[in-house]
Amino acid sequence: MKQQKPSVTPLVTPPATPMLDKVNLPHDLKQFADRDLPQLAAELRAEMIDAVSVTGGHLGAGLGVVELTLAIHYLFNTPEDRLIFDVGHQCYPHKILTGRRDKIRTLRKENGLSGFTSRKESDYDPFGAAHSSTSISAGLGMATASKLQGKDNHVICVVGDGAMSAGMIYEAINNAAATHSKLIIILNDNDMSIAPPVGAMSKYLARLLSSRSFLEFRHFSHKAVHKILPKGLRPRVLKTEEFVRYYLSGNGTLFEELGLYYLGPVNGHDFTSLLPVLRNVRDMQAENFPVLIHAVTQKGKGYAPAEKSDDKYHGVSQFDVISGLQIKPKSNAPSYTSVFGKALVAAATDDEKVVGITAAMPDGTGLNFLQNAFPARYFDVGIAEQHAVTFAAGLATEGYKPFVAIYSTFLQRAYDQVVHDVAIQNLPVKFALDRAGMVGADGQTHAGSFDISYLCCLPNMVVLVPADEAELMHGVHTAHHYNDGPIAFRFPRGEAIGVDLPKQPEKLKIGKGRIIKQGKDIAVLTLGPRLYEAVKADDILSQQGYNITIADARFAKPIDRELLHQLVENHDYLITMEEGAIGGFSAQVLDILARDNLLERVIYRPLYMKDSFIDHASQQKQYAQTGLDADALVRLVKGLTAKG
Amino acid sequence: MKQQKPSVTPLVTPPATPMLDKVNLPHDLKQFADRDLPQLAAELRAEMIDAVSVTGGHLGAGLGVVELTLAIHYLFNTPEDRLIFDVGHQCYPHKILTGRRDKIRTLRKENGLSGFTSRKESDYDPFGAAHSSTSISAGLGMATASKLQGKDNHVICVVGDGAMSAGMIYEAINNAAATHSKLIIILNDNDMSIAPPVGAMSKYLARLLSSRSFLEFRHFSHKAVHKILPKGLRPRVLKTEEFVRYYLSGNGTLFEELGLYYLGPVNGHDFTSLLPVLRNVRDMQAENFPVLIHAVTQKGKGYAPAEKSDDKYHGVSQFDVISGLQIKPKSNAPSYTSVFGKALVAAATDDEKVVGITAAMPDGTGLNFLQNAFPARYFDVGIAEQHAVTFAAGLATEGYKPFVAIYSTFLQRAYDQVVHDVAIQNLPVKFALDRAGMVGADGQTHAGSFDISYLCCLPNMVVLVPADEAELMHGVHTAHHYNDGPIAFRFPRGEAIGVDLPKQPEKLKIGKGRIIKQGKDIAVLTLGPRLYEAVKADDILSQQGYNITIADARFAKPIDRELLHQLVENHDYLITMEEGAIGGFSAQVLDILARDNLLERVIYRPLYMKDSFIDHASQQKQYAQTGLDADALVRLVKGLTAKG
Repeated sequence: MKQQKPSVTPLVTPPATPMLDKVNLPHDLKQFADRDLPQLAAELRAEMIDAVSVTGGHLGAGLGVVELTLAIHYLFNTPEDRLIFDVGHQCYPHKILTGRRDKIRTLRKENGLSGFTSRKESDYDPFGAAHSSTSISAGLGMATASKLQGKDNHVICVVGDGAMSAGMIYEAINNAAATHSKLIIILNDNDMSIAPPVGAMSKYLARLLSSRSFLEFRHFSHKAVHKILPKGLRPRVLKTEEFVRYYLSGNGTLFEELGLYYLGPVNGHDFTSLLPVLRNVRDMQAENFPVLIHAVTQKGKGYAPAEKSDDKYHGVSQFDVISGLQIKPKSNAPSYTSVFGKALVAAATDDEKVVGITAAMPDGTGLNFLQNAFPARYFDVGIAEQHAVTFAAGLATEGYKPFVAIYSTFLQRAYDQVVHDVAIQNLPVKFALDRAGMVGADGQTHAGSFDISYLCCLPNMVVLVPADEAELMHGVHTAHHYNDGPIAFRFPRGEAIGVDLPKQPEKLKIGKGRIIKQGKDIAVLTLGPRLYEAVKADDILSQQGYNITIADARFAKPIDRELLHQLVENHDYLITMEEGAIGGFSAQVLDILARDNLLERVIYRPLYMKDSFIDHASQQKQYAQTGLDADALVRLVKGLTAKG
Repeated sequence: MKQQKPSVTPLVTPPATPMLDKVNLPHDLKQFADRDLPQLAAELRAEMIDAVSVTGGHLGAGLGVVELTLAIHYLFNTPEDRLIFDVGHQCYPHKILTGRRDKIRTLRKENGLSGFTSRKESDYDPFGAAHSSTSISAGLGMATASKLQGKDNHVICVVGDGAMSAGMIYEAINNAAATHSKLIIILNDNDMSIAPPVGAMSKYLARLLSSRSFLEFRHFSHKAVHKILPKGLRPRVLKTEEFVRYYLSGNGTLFEELGLYYLGPVNGHDFTSLLPVLRNVRDMQAENFPVLIHAVTQKGKGYAPAEKSDDKYHGVSQFDVISGLQIKPKSNAPSYTSVFGKALVAAATDDEKVVGITAAMPDGTGLNFLQNAFPARYFDVGIAEQHAVTFAAGLATEGYKPFVAIYSTFLQRAYDQVVHDVAIQNLPVKFALDRAGMVGADGQTHAGSFDISYLCCLPNMVVLVPADEAELMHGVHTAHHYNDGPIAFRFPRGEAIGVDLPKQPEKLKIGKGRIIKQGKDIAVLTLGPRLYEAVKADDILSQQGYNITIADARFAKPIDRELLHQLVENHDYLITMEEGAIGGFSAQVLDILARDNLLERVIYRPLYMKDSFIDHASQQKQYAQTGLDADALVRLVKGLTAKG
């Protein structure tokens, strides 16, 4: 996928939204009555579809929570009541209702709204989220703070069913019940996270739905309520007869056993169900305890192309509202992801010990290729990165060659498992890190900035960074055949360079780089696709009389010692350039330079990401901002030599 | 606590163990009959108590699983059947039974046995573990490998109830049920992990026990078994009448809902209960599915002082077997942990916004001081590091000043939460990292080696490293009053330096270091307690005509730019020294040296940990091995100046 999207005019006339036009902030919703909400929901939905058709972004998730979002803002007192959206990608309707409608068509664009919730952006976003399953922990912190201060505001967490496979959610629920905090958890169950959900919890939720019709408020007698409800709830509840706690044997018991009061399932698109449940939960005042409302929704609700799709409308490009056709810029090069996916299938074809593991991202990581080719050797463990890595370690102890395909930013979730289960035991687990470096529209939270730093400091770890898609094919092949310990290879989001792919991949020599172009005076040693920025810089510099040497380190760890000696001996200046934060490749280079007494024989300057989180923009602009494009290299070379 | 323990002779005559003497490997157990096992257990227990009285180590955990360990090795075919101990600290009886009895009195000593399971050490340790809650993931990987290869060996995971609060366990269980893998999970429920367990799961387990007496095998009729058991189980089970699946409404349903077959509770010290259950689970062959056996044990079983203790016998020093008195070397200085704990109470006394969070380690982290002083502002969230950090982030959004007190090695479990929830949002969470650097007898898995590297690469993060206990007091005070973003401060395991403590702590200026001793030619800039090694080195070097400058950076990030300029201007050589891996403080120093064109004006050499995991030994020996003691500094100085 191209990184810079052309600016476009809306594809259809924006929809008429007479009621929604009266809403700037949630407070404005109080002017309406319950019966007005369906019309408001329709307008909100139309506005959102139109906006995303212009901007691209997460469509299905937002459409699924239109009624939920409206109902919460209508009944609760945000921002005093804290509303946290787990993952945050379903927050577009929320942004429209919370003073950001005028900017909604700047979503995910440079200087525009973030695609996720963001504390910087609005007081109505009390917690930023873009990684899954953090909301209950954060909400419990807020609820605990309220309790300590004697405040009685509400904290509401909206969590998708996909997020329920992550250990962090379980840790939070386990703790919530024990702390007697007032917390409202709305489980937004659309039975479809990014990919079809897997695991026991998902099956459990499906059983809850199949075994029961939706919560109907008049089916239960006053008496039943009295009998079933916990003591603290009774006094208030008895005044509100339409409220019923749906507590029958076998329904919701898992959550009950974990100390939550379970309510549901409720049709999350039906205001006549949603409003009374939320009103009553809001008005309970007797005791502090966590409540879980199980709301059933449909991802993509109200927009036929999104309703029908599996995960194709999870994150979308711009699209035509009428047909639903997505408008993608024509691509000249394959995506890195697909190159990896196909190379892995080739490896798996050669070797039955090759297996692949994803944490709920088969399409995002390219593991869908393996899934199709060798389903028995493909494992989707759910949103469960910690488990994914140690599961792979277990497979490795038995002689398998597990590829853990994961985004760089999500491997952060499994850092201890990488250290404790893989690196210390020196197990040959292969980490295929997608979305390494800047990631464009997804912004700060998804940037793969730190992996080189947090992996290179680990003994036993090999870190390979292919410069282009051909090198990535070599990288997969090399990782496949390297079984002396763990190895990670990382590659960017999006479209590759466009180089020819080799018929047969090569096995790279571990820790050996290559000279790309021999020049003199100034050596530029790049790691990864920054190689092509060095080539661009060379085009500019050569016109100004410079003749730089360009080398590709290929490995961040171990460093090619011989190459480094050669570069130092033949050049006055050495510059390294990598698509990551401080402390990674540059620290490895410094180590050899210092150890081998080379540091005094060359003027060394490292280029890495600046020490700040970079907002969403095109990848190219993000690299410019963080000082890692051809221009930055040109500036450094000229500045250095002027001084020299 | 002193790091080097004097070598000692056993305190009593080793116990007579005539039956145990016939056992070198688990295979040797097959010569015995069921009725012999209680006597074997008694001998094994006596041997273990005697060994730990000499070596120190984890006592209670091992005593609790003597019967379990014997029963498993007696009935299963290890090492073909894989036996994984979660956390691994309960593995001493296992080590005695698996060919390591002759080395058992070298436990945790240099060149001796590891205190945890270790793949390096024995084929009977298929997975090393020292951090909690990894076993089911690893076991599921092994079981999956067996399935892929058509092997029918067993995989048995022994997991304590404390480990059940960690998200990783939940992720693994969630996945296990979905993969139809053959896996035997033995929940070793002693209702006492390191500290009393907290959370909903713990309460649930307690309810399971209180609602039922132990599994009695003759209470259920053939017919009941037939009716209750899942189809796949029936054929085999019907041949073994004593086997009963304990499946009644309300018992074990949480595990059942998560897709495990629940058996129990079983008295884990009673062979007449354990053997039939394990035999039958072993002999089921019809289908692949995970089984959970709920065994109830007593930590410290069979040794009165350990039975009575809460967590005092979790990890012990050498002790007198008869009295149970622990023999600790006299300590001249307080532990860093207690200095931190008291300083936090002082901060909390001044400021009601100060709160403390621990992940199941109140004593280990010194948070017990806060617990006693301000119980309402003390939070033990269970073994749940991910949740702990984001819970703290939530508290910080509401104006609280949360101190997350955690071991350096365990913060690895929450790295993504540090990045995504704290650093990106720039929330003022304070990380108090205990056990930073080398940790002595706990070895590789507990070393706090990587925190400086993995934290310094994060934008917004401040990393403070006090050089001694007085500096730690300043550090706590500084962290308390720093609210512009996250701050981490790290301190070692064990006994502090022995300096005088200040009456009033000072607020340190962020990013400012200090000159300790002005010399010339050679500047040594230390981070943390390595300062005192530099002082030792200076004692040696000054006798040889050197006059080095010693400075204490205090902060790994941000770096004291002014100090660095000063050191470079006035010295020919600059050496940095830190108690951590590559890529941390040294990378920050390089950044300034390169950015400010100082790198060419000085000969710079960084000292950090060598690129290898260091085995258990005294902290001092570990630092010598990893090249970070006074001798290493002396060698470097002499080598450098010889060359210069």
